[in-house]
Amino acid sequence: MHILEQRIREDGVVKKGGVLKVDGFLNHRIDTALLDSIGREFYRLFADADITKIVTIEASGIGVAVMAARYFGVPVVFAKKAKTVQLDDDVYSAEIHSFTHNNDYTAVISRRYLTSDDVVLVIDDFLANGEAVRGLRAIIAEAGAQLAGVGIVIEKGFQCGGDRLRAEGIRVESLALIDSMDDETGEIVFR
Amino acid sequence: MHILEQRIREDGVVKKGGVLKVDGFLNHRIDTALLDSIGREFYRLFADADITKIVTIEASGIGVAVMAARYFGVPVVFAKKAKTVQLDDDVYSAEIHSFTHNNDYTAVISRRYLTSDDVVLVIDDFLANGEAVRGLRAIIAEAGAQLAGVGIVIEKGFQCGGDRLRAEGIRVESLALIDSMDDETGEIVFR
Repeated sequence: MHILEQRIREDGVVKKGGVLKVDGFLNHRIDTALLDSIGREFYRLFADADITKIVTIEASGIGVAVMAARYFGVPVVFAKKAKTVQLDDDVYSAEIHSFTHNNDYTAVISRRYLTSDDVVLVIDDFLANGEAVRGLRAIIAEAGAQLAGVGIVIEKGFQCGGDRLRAEGIRVESLALIDSMDDETGEIVFR
Repeated sequence: MHILEQRIREDGVVKKGGVLKVDGFLNHRIDTALLDSIGREFYRLFADADITKIVTIEASGIGVAVMAARYFGVPVVFAKKAKTVQLDDDVYSAEIHSFTHNNDYTAVISRRYLTSDDVVLVIDDFLANGEAVRGLRAIIAEAGAQLAGVGIVIEKGFQCGGDRLRAEGIRVESLALIDSMDDETGEIVFR
């Protein structure tokens, strides 16, 4: 998605350790018009997939998911990050390791809001190692729902999570796919 | 807002201690069409206020803020909840006490994304004691920006936070204002 790549080049900040800061338009300040275009693009890509629900994880996935869901005309369910182990029986849950924050958390979705009738599009802002998608995929499988695909705003191709998911037969569509970044020059190479 | 009150009556669950669960359409599963109507209603209410930015707090405020911002044609800035005290100099911050979770957290907004040129609409899903709005108001004041008003999806009128803010001259518009709730009968009385 050209306008997104352009925006990442202009406003993204490459940090050490493969970190890309996009606080200026996606993760702290949200460029609403860009987010709307992103939502429309996900709809264009998955319009044929008969999606019934969009699933994401709080917090930064919510804005993207909601904007996309408007085009699909379907509800969003966002997994909550549970810190405690006090989970009741009426939830699906999955352990997820975050490389960004170097911690583990439990993603939780109520059984009421995901069923075997659902055809799910997973949407998230970033995909790096693919741990969050893996967790959501486990929850969707546990619910007996169908995972139609994964829509990602920015994929860090050099961390290979997306390619591993694709190799397993999952349809992953990333609007910007970064093959390499240089924190000294700030150069970003898109696939 | 009639369709919102109706939805709260149908799907809201009144719990002990003044808790209203709206996981079915606002806080876990999001009814996208309803959220879009909510966004449009905030625009109708504040269309004359020359809003330049919508400010909210992660996580559950983001969906509402983004939907509203689409109508206003302005960006969203969402305050992040910082758990550590490792805040750098380039942020505004405010301590906020959460009655819901009975803890304190620090809300943080980067100085880059809020300036003295901004006319701000604060949007949030719930208003009870008004602590979150108070924190954001302090941040907006520190930035030298103007607080044009506060848009709330569901105000718990019996916790008086909204009325205290109104008494201080702040324009607070709540789309559903609950005067009382009964956790035994499930009855909800709107103002």
